[in-house]
Amino acid sequence: MSNDIYSTYHLYPPPQLSEIKTTVVYPATEKHLQKYLRQDAYLICETGEDYKNITLPFIQSQSFSIQWVYNILEKKAEADRIIHENPDSSNGFILIPDFKWNQKQLDDLYLIAICHRRGIKSLRDLTAEHLPLLRNILQEGKEAILKRFGVAGSQLRIYLHYQPSYFHLHVHFTALSYDAPGCSVERAHLLSDVIDNLELDPQYYQKRTLTFALRADEALLKKFQEAGKA
Amino acid sequence: MSNDIYSTYHLYPPPQLSEIKTTVVYPATEKHLQKYLRQDAYLICETGEDYKNITLPFIQSQSFSIQWVYNILEKKAEADRIIHENPDSSNGFILIPDFKWNQKQLDDLYLIAICHRRGIKSLRDLTAEHLPLLRNILQEGKEAILKRFGVAGSQLRIYLHYQPSYFHLHVHFTALSYDAPGCSVERAHLLSDVIDNLELDPQYYQKRTLTFALRADEALLKKFQEAGKA
Repeated sequence: MSNDIYSTYHLYPPPQLSEIKTTVVYPATEKHLQKYLRQDAYLICETGEDYKNITLPFIQSQSFSIQWVYNILEKKAEADRIIHENPDSSNGFILIPDFKWNQKQLDDLYLIAICHRRGIKSLRDLTAEHLPLLRNILQEGKEAILKRFGVAGSQLRIYLHYQPSYFHLHVHFTALSYDAPGCSVERAHLLSDVIDNLELDPQYYQKRTLTFALRADEALLKKFQEAGKA
Repeated sequence: MSNDIYSTYHLYPPPQLSEIKTTVVYPATEKHLQKYLRQDAYLICETGEDYKNITLPFIQSQSFSIQWVYNILEKKAEADRIIHENPDSSNGFILIPDFKWNQKQLDDLYLIAICHRRGIKSLRDLTAEHLPLLRNILQEGKEAILKRFGVAGSQLRIYLHYQPSYFHLHVHFTALSYDAPGCSVERAHLLSDVIDNLELDPQYYQKRTLTFALRADEALLKKFQEAGKA
């Protein structure tokens, strides 16, 4: 059974695997149940203005707890699972296996890099200022995975989610051969593309229209509908 | 059994479906067999220069036949399957159900828009000059699918592949709820993003590094390896 403070990890769409795996979410709240029920999804085209007027106020109005992230960063939890750490408070991060990966085979390799710096909620907050952090994650993350698991960078899909599952910047590392949940074009953004875009325009992610899917029951969808944008 | 001139349609990775479907490829060449065998894949980061020096000469050296595409555009084949046509020779296109979709249910809706204009090999050839064509495909494609199948644009994933399966510009329309093959971030490019990028920089796709996966047996991988780029 999973500790509820990690429930965010377990709330991803269930992965499609050739062997049956189960994830026990306990205690399961109404929100967990809704997440697992199949529902219609709608594509949202969020402009920079939509983010400021709709999404950001919504995020701020919610009490999303990310204490479990801080517990990892402060070594109060999961310290024995850390694969790599760059301890720099501005440009450092912790690399840790995702809970969906049992580490027994490389087919569904899945790790997460969590940045030390606080307050970067998502892709939308990134500017050229964050390039050293992002380059560290890309370079050191690949090196650490090669060293520990023998998987080369050319066999890794390295990306951010937008919308993310939790609002503290993190980067996904999955095996390229693994059809990982959330790696489709309407949710995943390759870290190498993010770096190139910020080099092209430091305000790229403040201005750019970002497209993502929301399920019919998600409160953010209602906000977009109320604003006449969905 | 499929006609060999359409084999390109059938050479996609087989879709993951809850019901069993089969695609018979006959006659099956060595190339077909290789495509269906599970193989390691490698991520290539193709710069604009790499495209000019490695990929473009490779494409030009191959005798990829796209006569089957011209047959559709000239109504010599498939004319009864056309869902929508804009006949303009510069900015028009034909919208047709993909062969992987049997049209019996909307869960795995899959259509292809094929542009009338010849000589646009892929995303790499697109410039601001092609914006009217791309906007027509986005707008009219959504309208036609709503009218014929009752599926709204907000429930469609509309994207290009890079690398594509064949070198005549085409756009994929799949149901958002369908985990379609080839919609992951390392292959799919949302049409709305492509339009935004060309509006931002008319030469975006000539200059930009594009990331894609190649299987171990693909001849293009060998070309990148020989150039010391993979």
